Amino acid sequence: MTGRLTIAGLGPGDARLVTPEVSAALSEATDVLGYAPYVARVPVREGLRRHPSDNRMELTRASAALKLAAQGRSVVLVSSGDPGVFAMAAAVFEAMDAAPELQRLSVRVLPGVTAMLAAAAAAGAPLGHDFCAINLSDNLKPWVVIEKRLRLAAEADFAIAIYNPRSAVRPDGFGRALDVLKEAGCGERTIILAHAVTTPRERIETLRLQDARPEMADMATLVIVGNSTTRRVGRWVYAPRRASC
Amino acid sequence: MTGRLTIAGLGPGDARLVTPEVSAALSEATDVLGYAPYVARVPVREGLRRHPSDNRMELTRASAALKLAAQGRSVVLVSSGDPGVFAMAAAVFEAMDAAPELQRLSVRVLPGVTAMLAAAAAAGAPLGHDFCAINLSDNLKPWVVIEKRLRLAAEADFAIAIYNPRSAVRPDGFGRALDVLKEAGCGERTIILAHAVTTPRERIETLRLQDARPEMADMATLVIVGNSTTRRVGRWVYAPRRASC
Repeated sequence: MTGRLTIAGLGPGDARLVTPEVSAALSEATDVLGYAPYVARVPVREGLRRHPSDNRMELTRASAALKLAAQGRSVVLVSSGDPGVFAMAAAVFEAMDAAPELQRLSVRVLPGVTAMLAAAAAAGAPLGHDFCAINLSDNLKPWVVIEKRLRLAAEADFAIAIYNPRSAVRPDGFGRALDVLKEAGCGERTIILAHAVTTPRERIETLRLQDARPEMADMATLVIVGNSTTRRVGRWVYAPRRASC
Repeated sequence: MTGRLTIAGLGPGDARLVTPEVSAALSEATDVLGYAPYVARVPVREGLRRHPSDNRMELTRASAALKLAAQGRSVVLVSSGDPGVFAMAAAVFEAMDAAPELQRLSVRVLPGVTAMLAAAAAAGAPLGHDFCAINLSDNLKPWVVIEKRLRLAAEADFAIAIYNPRSAVRPDGFGRALDVLKEAGCGERTIILAHAVTTPRERIETLRLQDARPEMADMATLVIVGNSTTRRVGRWVYAPRRASC
């Protein structure tokens, strides 16, 4: 097999956050696949075939990318942010796991700036101390697992980055997550709602968790809940580097 | 005040992982500060003053950067990886918190590819499901806090990215962390030791946690402990996107 599959992260939105490594891979590709809004971020070029697809088609899209690479094409599968964080890389390895004939393909993963890092930078340094990242989508895991993780994260005093807090088909998850965190004693914590980070529509809201309302988040929102020591200085929010018992 | 402080992440090592946004900031700076090995990664240029400093001087370095900016200089403070993850951004906001006269300075944080994302990409997709990041340095927090977080992270079934697992002055921490995780029932989990990721000395070791030895890690190692469902396919390691109760 002479084909190759590159799984690449485009960063959160701003073209200046696409790494030169990813730009080089895109400039050499014959085919680019991905969720349509992400494929639309790849510069048009003669000789580059574009294969946009719908959301929630991860495994189908991963298999299609692997098959094109097996045919000898030079394929780039694009994700927003980092491909390894709640994005396409895991889906590709799942597809390879189910198809032994594809396991000798040349595959590489190119990292990118994931949304929580851009959101944190826009807000200050709320992830400057230990933290966790939780995907609030319950498409692939039961809600009870999400709730357990939120409670344990609160107990561990992690800052908590929440991906995919709310969508049209899952309108209730973010409100339930806020309730769980309030019950866990996090009502006074700082919460950051980062909307459309690094795009022209970027908007950063910072408030107390108990004042947050479910409708403040949508699928373009990355949420960061501070830890118990998180502080504000001017318009900035940061996690002090020290922790005590 | 006409000066400006930019806190920028250089990524894990490879120049192709420095974002164009950070490269642009460096090309316009009058002064660059940082831990000496990171300042050494900034291209030399006429008109650019370089201020390398020792490790573990974070607050002193942050204050020096703020003071230079207050004098009207265009200052870039560089971190490896992402400046908001166990790096310089939190130290700058701590310094600002203690010096109200500096709070009106123009400050911005430019995100970067943090080590765990590059390590995960080199290994496959071990952070493709919920995960946490824990700094194993106990300079600024007591060991009992680290141990508690490791236990709760195991109970939450997070993949665990471990930063700064071991240093000459803290030779014991990584061994103790392995013991805590074994006691928490994680002996059969997959562990990835990613050495010097994205540099010519990169080396990725993947084994069972119970077979890992403390001396396998040093300060150039980023460790990722898989969750209970983490799988291997060929040379790759990934976290399946599904979870059950």
